[in-house]
Amino acid sequence: MTGVQLYDATLRDGMGGGGLTLTAEEKLRVVHALDALGIELIEAGFPASNPKELELFELLQRERLEVAQIVAFGMTRRRGVAAAEDEGLQVLAGCFAPVCTLVGKASPLHVEKVVRVSREENLAMIGESVAFLAGEGKRVLLDAEHFFDGFAIDPGYALECLRAAVDAGAERVVLCDTNGGSLPPQIRTALAVVREALPNAPLGIHTHDDSGCAVANTLAAVEGGATQVQGTVNGVGERTGNANLITIIADLQLKMAVGVLPDERLARLTETAHFVDELLNRTPNVSQPYVGKHAFAHKAGLHAAGVRADAQTFEHVDPEVVGNSRDVLISELSGKGTILEKAGEAGLQLPTGAALDDFCKRVLERVKELEHGGFQFEAADGSFVLLMRKEAGTYEPLFRLESWRVLVEQRADGKVVTEATIKIWLGGERYVRTAEGNGPVNALDNALRDAIGEIYPHLRDIELVNFKVRILDETKGTDAVTRVLIDASDGHDVWGSIGVSENLIAASWDALVDSLEYGMQPEHAPPRDPAARSSGRT
Amino acid sequence: MTGVQLYDATLRDGMGGGGLTLTAEEKLRVVHALDALGIELIEAGFPASNPKELELFELLQRERLEVAQIVAFGMTRRRGVAAAEDEGLQVLAGCFAPVCTLVGKASPLHVEKVVRVSREENLAMIGESVAFLAGEGKRVLLDAEHFFDGFAIDPGYALECLRAAVDAGAERVVLCDTNGGSLPPQIRTALAVVREALPNAPLGIHTHDDSGCAVANTLAAVEGGATQVQGTVNGVGERTGNANLITIIADLQLKMAVGVLPDERLARLTETAHFVDELLNRTPNVSQPYVGKHAFAHKAGLHAAGVRADAQTFEHVDPEVVGNSRDVLISELSGKGTILEKAGEAGLQLPTGAALDDFCKRVLERVKELEHGGFQFEAADGSFVLLMRKEAGTYEPLFRLESWRVLVEQRADGKVVTEATIKIWLGGERYVRTAEGNGPVNALDNALRDAIGEIYPHLRDIELVNFKVRILDETKGTDAVTRVLIDASDGHDVWGSIGVSENLIAASWDALVDSLEYGMQPEHAPPRDPAARSSGRT
Repeated sequence: MTGVQLYDATLRDGMGGGGLTLTAEEKLRVVHALDALGIELIEAGFPASNPKELELFELLQRERLEVAQIVAFGMTRRRGVAAAEDEGLQVLAGCFAPVCTLVGKASPLHVEKVVRVSREENLAMIGESVAFLAGEGKRVLLDAEHFFDGFAIDPGYALECLRAAVDAGAERVVLCDTNGGSLPPQIRTALAVVREALPNAPLGIHTHDDSGCAVANTLAAVEGGATQVQGTVNGVGERTGNANLITIIADLQLKMAVGVLPDERLARLTETAHFVDELLNRTPNVSQPYVGKHAFAHKAGLHAAGVRADAQTFEHVDPEVVGNSRDVLISELSGKGTILEKAGEAGLQLPTGAALDDFCKRVLERVKELEHGGFQFEAADGSFVLLMRKEAGTYEPLFRLESWRVLVEQRADGKVVTEATIKIWLGGERYVRTAEGNGPVNALDNALRDAIGEIYPHLRDIELVNFKVRILDETKGTDAVTRVLIDASDGHDVWGSIGVSENLIAASWDALVDSLEYGMQPEHAPPRDPAARSSGRT
Repeated sequence: MTGVQLYDATLRDGMGGGGLTLTAEEKLRVVHALDALGIELIEAGFPASNPKELELFELLQRERLEVAQIVAFGMTRRRGVAAAEDEGLQVLAGCFAPVCTLVGKASPLHVEKVVRVSREENLAMIGESVAFLAGEGKRVLLDAEHFFDGFAIDPGYALECLRAAVDAGAERVVLCDTNGGSLPPQIRTALAVVREALPNAPLGIHTHDDSGCAVANTLAAVEGGATQVQGTVNGVGERTGNANLITIIADLQLKMAVGVLPDERLARLTETAHFVDELLNRTPNVSQPYVGKHAFAHKAGLHAAGVRADAQTFEHVDPEVVGNSRDVLISELSGKGTILEKAGEAGLQLPTGAALDDFCKRVLERVKELEHGGFQFEAADGSFVLLMRKEAGTYEPLFRLESWRVLVEQRADGKVVTEATIKIWLGGERYVRTAEGNGPVNALDNALRDAIGEIYPHLRDIELVNFKVRILDETKGTDAVTRVLIDASDGHDVWGSIGVSENLIAASWDALVDSLEYGMQPEHAPPRDPAARSSGRT
């Protein structure tokens, strides 16, 4: 099977997800990322719905794209107005985008209850709007909204809506599961009927994940003859999200032999998915199929050994193909192979021969000892790399600690104040700094950055993005300990660090220092020699 | 279609997800939540893999469950060992659980590369292990691991593996898509072949989400004749997760007319999903089908108006049916019925008539307002009862706070010291107390108990058993807040409390006070009149 067109709706439909916003400039970056991935059609929005959209289309008009074409999105004409007189359609006709997608109703329920026009007027709204834009030289797509719900109520009318668009010159009709309630069997049945009724009409599919089947519904439609798939990066979108285009691309290409991207572009899948999450300020879903950090994670032991013997035993596809990588979870059962893999990923210089065996043994012993005390390195890859560096003799602390102190007080007037003081040594000098914060960890972080931020300017790029605390009371009779996990990011990578202590603040401090030290590792930061920085940003 | 059995694997397979841990006590709470939801089989783990699992099975043996039966999980016998001599099988045979699930390989690739036995020995391992446990009076299920991959390589051998189990007395064989790489068409094809080859064997389905199709694959198997679905709450599990049993339940019942739960239990779906996430210290996925906070969120304007005109226009199912609600900010506590239920459970005296309506309305408004600020009462039942008491006018504070202060210091000698001072009023008297602790919350707790413990001796029975912290940063532009959840216990009951603040320590203090105040409620403690206590334990 070949010839399935990729249509991205992240910038329009995808932005309906709660709390998501992008500036015009950021949307432009998404467009370039999608173009680099090889997406053919990019729905950018309605070119005049607000000043930001207008600005985006102005920016887009000046851009050169390699593969992608920009799609402007709008609605069929208002009721009782000639298409040529409809302001929305005039905007679409006048905009630079070569392709226009019009949304029209394909369900009698919506025609009656929401648009409140006669069935005939709805057909006229579709046909005349398509004809007008086609006459203006546009390639026109109809998004047949609520198609599958409409098909369940009155298949004949749903088909008439499609036919109205096709007869008026639409390049393609897109069957939309707008409420996301369909399951694959309904999609298959409807596609079979549509293919028979409109054998020459190119079809698209647009689904939502309300039944947890958006991807499967999309694939079922492709099997049923749809030749365009619409979706959003990482499945962002209102309610439960749109179909995840990232998963669909990988499934089509790797599972259904539908060639949608050249291999070298498919290898950008993970990078593209993470990039869009970063721009949207979303924490990437570690469990996301194909591209999640844990998508190819293996428990040490039997699984990891199996993967080494034959990757097919425990991997459904080769992670490299989608630009992801194998991740072996660190746990008490880890073996030497796991350590070498992790060290390789982190780019560590390791000894050779017997010294290497020694190194692995020491790391294993240290992990075992720490895990016994409540550490857990699965979500703390940053701390694990530091541990390996310490055992390899290549660890350099950012500073030497003398002491720290945190004071948190709720005063009689109800106000809560937090103050942290640190005393540290760096390059033979003693730094004493006090800072306030909105909490104890924030205050410590502020004090520390105040002290060393000038010497290590890259610290400014590192943000703490997540903070989790648990009390561990695994075995009775032992004192409970507090485990703090911090996720930090420098805008490219995200890493985890861990601190374990009887004391919440001490555990937080340890995780904080690990998180900054890992972020300042050579592979993340420019060289650490303070002298080399004097010509830098400071 | 009827008669599909629900099998939950959260506590065993689900715990393979990176960073997930539950104490035995917490697992027990999950078991009760699953039982209340109406899950028939609950896979609790291997009864002797470590002391924690052993403790869990000891706890479980003493529990009375309404619907659920406990399943013990283990492996087929080791190679070259008689089943009766295999230590793992002996443990299963000796444990109280009436049902045992054995995992056995069903793919020649794994038999050869991972287990490294002959195909015949693998069949013997399956058959003899099943026969041994069946002979010991157990109901035995075979999890046919890597079945679909094995079926692709050698359908005949994959079927032989199933047949070995069935012939040996297995109650059911479960077809596992262990690597999660299958798509619905493969599932359909394989099921058709299995049904023909083994027409009388009850079948189960166990999938993973590596292709983003775990739910659809499960549904396809049910269509194909599987009568048991295995999955985990919220799809937790290693890599991309197991099939999401929450979504599957709703799809089966609401979309496929497969009655798996009585209506009143289905309405617990949202509550159960959130409860398990809270115990796992996972942020509930707002976009999760059916139960996510945004699953039934509507854009203002056309959508909202459409929903008012006819909910079917923009809702694929009625949110109430799964215990969710249309409003983004209201949680499971959104209906009057729920509030009355919770108040009844807590033994609160409520007003009647119009005053009762007023009370419910005030509680709802307060919940909405607090949830907007980051509160979440699903795992904080103690705090919710206090909230209801406040609105019912029956709340009595334990004391009046003037101020508190916490100092945590890591001194130059490396020692960490923590000290808390509180100033409170009780019965017209001012108490100033300073205490040390192994952390800031412990120190505050110690100071508070020092001040009021003599007046409220029952406080001594109350222990803080769990403490969880998460940073909430739901929308850009808003400052992040810290949410602290504390679980406390008096040896009989366990309850949760919550504090939310910009400041970690302030949030902890609020949760701490709630947790002690709830524990001192009349239903937990003897009357609070200090005079009445003088003859007590003090």
